[in-house]
Amino acid sequence: MLALTILGNNSAVPAFDRHPTSQVITHNGNNYLIDCGEGTQMQLLRYKVRRSKITHIFISHLHGDHYFGLIGLLNSLSLLGHTQPITVFAPPPLQEIINIQLNVSDTTLNFDLRFQPLTDAATLLDTSSLVIKSFPTDHRIPCFGFSFEEKKIPRKLIPEKAKAAGIPTAFYERLVRGEDYETKTGEIISVESVTEPMPPGPKYAYCADTRYNEAIIEHIQGFDMIYHESTYLHALAERAYDRYHSTSIQAATLAQKAGVKKLLLGHFSSKYAVLDEFLSEARSVFPTTDLALEGACYMV
Amino acid sequence: MLALTILGNNSAVPAFDRHPTSQVITHNGNNYLIDCGEGTQMQLLRYKVRRSKITHIFISHLHGDHYFGLIGLLNSLSLLGHTQPITVFAPPPLQEIINIQLNVSDTTLNFDLRFQPLTDAATLLDTSSLVIKSFPTDHRIPCFGFSFEEKKIPRKLIPEKAKAAGIPTAFYERLVRGEDYETKTGEIISVESVTEPMPPGPKYAYCADTRYNEAIIEHIQGFDMIYHESTYLHALAERAYDRYHSTSIQAATLAQKAGVKKLLLGHFSSKYAVLDEFLSEARSVFPTTDLALEGACYMV
Repeated sequence: MLALTILGNNSAVPAFDRHPTSQVITHNGNNYLIDCGEGTQMQLLRYKVRRSKITHIFISHLHGDHYFGLIGLLNSLSLLGHTQPITVFAPPPLQEIINIQLNVSDTTLNFDLRFQPLTDAATLLDTSSLVIKSFPTDHRIPCFGFSFEEKKIPRKLIPEKAKAAGIPTAFYERLVRGEDYETKTGEIISVESVTEPMPPGPKYAYCADTRYNEAIIEHIQGFDMIYHESTYLHALAERAYDRYHSTSIQAATLAQKAGVKKLLLGHFSSKYAVLDEFLSEARSVFPTTDLALEGACYMV
Repeated sequence: MLALTILGNNSAVPAFDRHPTSQVITHNGNNYLIDCGEGTQMQLLRYKVRRSKITHIFISHLHGDHYFGLIGLLNSLSLLGHTQPITVFAPPPLQEIINIQLNVSDTTLNFDLRFQPLTDAATLLDTSSLVIKSFPTDHRIPCFGFSFEEKKIPRKLIPEKAKAAGIPTAFYERLVRGEDYETKTGEIISVESVTEPMPPGPKYAYCADTRYNEAIIEHIQGFDMIYHESTYLHALAERAYDRYHSTSIQAATLAQKAGVKKLLLGHFSSKYAVLDEFLSEARSVFPTTDLALEGACYMV
């Protein structure tokens, strides 16, 4: 299971107690932070997301509303005595921005900070239980979305059948990974006869800042949930295009074409005090849409 | 009159809904921002301090809790269409830190941003109604306090006396500035005989981050109000010294020795959930002490 907590759902200028972009995926006790706008460390405190469990940070692009809070978070973690390494995936110039700020204050972080450059679609992390990938979006400066896929063992054992077939329990782990069993006499017991397929693990994608662009679809096809920015209502589609952003209808259209199960909207312009219309517009195209609300936690 | 609004009163790590350091002096409709920790732009919104009226920003030193919010504030002002120039007084490396972040996002600010290096005690601004000066404090890296002195015309006219003495009204402005009047016959009418002295304008000093250091006294002697940091209670005086900070008792002692009228304490360590003891300790030495509370406005 992936748990997504929204920390900031506004676009660049904070307003109406909405904050610049940040969200966190919690999986197996680790927190994976996605973008880190100004005030993210306060939002983590406010919503009781454990800062000490942040192992990886993903910065989509170098517009300030997506990373101005990073230096403060790193600084605070260090002052709080954090010692576990943290890996930051980000466009390359971020490393210099962080380092210059550590240098002028004569600060050495208490933990190992590892930068990994984002330059293209790539697999960023591949553990026994989770795969995280990046994909480019269509923005004014280089910008990346991120997908999170929980890995599950491919098959589920049917113990009574495996036992009846005389398969030793020591082989059960290989069965659930998909291997047939060969008896001492050379007989093949097919894995299908003693196991059943498991549903794939949940998949979530963060589509970052972007114009409407169907090139994103291949990276999110059939996902359980996606977040897609919706800076403007559809009446401002032209402005959205000019500023490399999307509208409610565009986000919903992409979700629909990608065949995902659920859509979250965010990155709302500070023009909008009330957000209801984002929901009604998007749901007219894609009914299973919700607003990404700060403090809310969504299970994927 | 100087109006002081506290935006952040905590030390480095935000906690208990207390924010990193920032405060603002309002004078004649202009806002002078002192330090700009992360989240300052949100605090300005929260307490309805007009961002568009910020003309000068004073950054005491380059520990992040005193400037990490600056880039976000500048960025938002630009997005909001701010056009008036803003002058930033700060230790020199800040200019590069700001510029590199504007460059990577391909941002040109909508207004003229002027950097003025802080390097020593100096007069930073001297207008017809206000003098702002810097003075060094005693911190781990170069750090400056700031004093604000409202200028008042030196004397107050006694109209009936000036009229009885036959002084033309055109000369009244020179009288209040302290000049004697010479009649056509060469008789001298002393300024003292037709005016009375005005009390000096209010004086406020922000003593920034500092160890207890009596070298500060000459810059704040007899001031109406000072802010002095008080990171720790006095039981942690040794830790305060090691970390170039002060205790409640030390702040109060400095206020008392400098003969100021009122002391505000701030920059509280995140160790302390409750702040009452800061007040009782400091008042035992200097009774007219208050806590610098976020959102509170103090008239000087």
